[in-house]
Amino acid sequence: MSLGEFDLIKRYFKQTNRGSNNSTVNGGVDTGVHIGIGDDCAILDVPEGYQLAVTTDSLVCGVHFFEDVCAYRLGYKSLAVNLSDLAAMGATPKWVSLAITLPSVDEEWLSEFSRGFFELASKHNITLIGGDTTKGPLSITVSAKGIVPRNKALLRSGAQIGDLICVSGALGNGALGLASKLDQIQLKDHNVFIDALELTEPRNELGMLLSLNASSCIDISDGLLQDLGHIVEASQCSATVQLEKLPLSAAMLAEISNNTLTIDQALQFALTGGDDYELAFTINKQRYEHLISCNLPTKVTVIGEIVSPNQLNIRLTQNNKTVSPQLTGWDHFKQS
Amino acid sequence: MSLGEFDLIKRYFKQTNRGSNNSTVNGGVDTGVHIGIGDDCAILDVPEGYQLAVTTDSLVCGVHFFEDVCAYRLGYKSLAVNLSDLAAMGATPKWVSLAITLPSVDEEWLSEFSRGFFELASKHNITLIGGDTTKGPLSITVSAKGIVPRNKALLRSGAQIGDLICVSGALGNGALGLASKLDQIQLKDHNVFIDALELTEPRNELGMLLSLNASSCIDISDGLLQDLGHIVEASQCSATVQLEKLPLSAAMLAEISNNTLTIDQALQFALTGGDDYELAFTINKQRYEHLISCNLPTKVTVIGEIVSPNQLNIRLTQNNKTVSPQLTGWDHFKQS
Repeated sequence: MSLGEFDLIKRYFKQTNRGSNNSTVNGGVDTGVHIGIGDDCAILDVPEGYQLAVTTDSLVCGVHFFEDVCAYRLGYKSLAVNLSDLAAMGATPKWVSLAITLPSVDEEWLSEFSRGFFELASKHNITLIGGDTTKGPLSITVSAKGIVPRNKALLRSGAQIGDLICVSGALGNGALGLASKLDQIQLKDHNVFIDALELTEPRNELGMLLSLNASSCIDISDGLLQDLGHIVEASQCSATVQLEKLPLSAAMLAEISNNTLTIDQALQFALTGGDDYELAFTINKQRYEHLISCNLPTKVTVIGEIVSPNQLNIRLTQNNKTVSPQLTGWDHFKQS
Repeated sequence: MSLGEFDLIKRYFKQTNRGSNNSTVNGGVDTGVHIGIGDDCAILDVPEGYQLAVTTDSLVCGVHFFEDVCAYRLGYKSLAVNLSDLAAMGATPKWVSLAITLPSVDEEWLSEFSRGFFELASKHNITLIGGDTTKGPLSITVSAKGIVPRNKALLRSGAQIGDLICVSGALGNGALGLASKLDQIQLKDHNVFIDALELTEPRNELGMLLSLNASSCIDISDGLLQDLGHIVEASQCSATVQLEKLPLSAAMLAEISNNTLTIDQALQFALTGGDDYELAFTINKQRYEHLISCNLPTKVTVIGEIVSPNQLNIRLTQNNKTVSPQLTGWDHFKQS
């Protein structure tokens, strides 16, 4: 069956009751969309007193996902990784553009992909405002846009000496899921880790809360060590991380108990595994006390502290002894 | 030589003196960039009284460009096609995100690509605010953002009965360049047409002028007939186009004189050839008189008129007789 590009876009990527021309209100919620899909550009309203936050991420078949990946999960994840960047700035997600390159028109695939994409979009009240559909090797580029109160964006550069270093959720699950998919490791229950890899939960609610409290923030998509390194570099400081404090999931602890994973392996996944999409942030100690008194949408764990300025390194300790695993995060071209 | 992703981005895609953190002024010009490349998101200032215009276009190797395309020209064009969408809305270009997928690190290629990209960006005073670099089959997705005074964006839906239909520049040159590259036609001087295809000039200055005068506008990237069809559909009207009025370039007329191109072929390229990136717009007759009294940055030609409402068709005439070439524009998946 041959289906034209425009029909394709209309059929699978049209959100009902959102972003229709000259209407910015959807079910009482202001979508901020003056003109949505269907003209040369989308026209959007950034409210007064707010700044625009923009991020772009590409997912390429064979690099970021397997050819046989479930289309629903790919649709979900292609948006989730972008929302995670907005979360790291403390921005409220508002709009998203989707550029999708497909080798051919597979309606079932498109239907599932868009179902995953829109399920997450609806959850965060985001409107698809445009994009492009082209023919070629499968890849997806999503550009998400959010709003953040003027001068309140969470930067990488704000960490101060004495700040606590915290992370959300549990670390290493996504990377363990990937290792399992690649048959690099045999787990007792791999599904929970593959879910963590493919149905990652972006931490936008926490990010918005952090914008009022944290001094710096980043999302851990390339691994804690590498991403915390960006904070250290941008903030011109040094960090100490206590390995025994790294939060591991109950599922990961169960694999350790089951002897399908060693503690050292677990720590390595937690430290350097990519695909976690948790937030790493620094926060003043008083602010931290205030933060944990709030009704937090996800667990937050203190894993270390910002120490002396200027050295730009991360010291790892285990039971008060310095350890040196010499590990780095994920870097596409360095891998080759 | 192995070069990391982050080094790569830094080296080739860092605009000097633009978008640096906490500085929104570049040489006296407000770039609107609060935070540029180097954090999880860019943070941008949309001035009060303005709306944000967003467009996204992908260029895929083997579909939108040849594998051996000059990297400089590809960098230039990947931005130009996006600027053309902003021009069609009457928006002032401000910011751009670039997602680039490369099979491997070729520094000479990257250097040339970024040179072409930034040459056009500088010309329009645009700041690169972020993006993504990934490994995979060569493709480029650009998302350009501009600003437009509130409620002044040029839509496809504003055409009125009696409005003149106009186009900028000359039509069909880009498509003729493509046909020549594909050896579908032998021309006397193909370079001028290949330049039109690869170094297309987006009509942003004209677009900004039109936002004060035109009733509807679109860029002719898929061919005049198809794109004018979008205006007709969105405005719920019909159009008449006089073929003898279609503006042909001096170079195209020279090919006709040389018998390397027939008049019918020329008209077919002008009507249905994609890759023109000129603007088609409708305008009230009094407004047109005012427009042509301005110092126009590019030639504008009246080619027809908006006629009866609701029929949603385009009647083509040649010397006052109706003709029916039954041609449509470019549609990726329909071609296959």
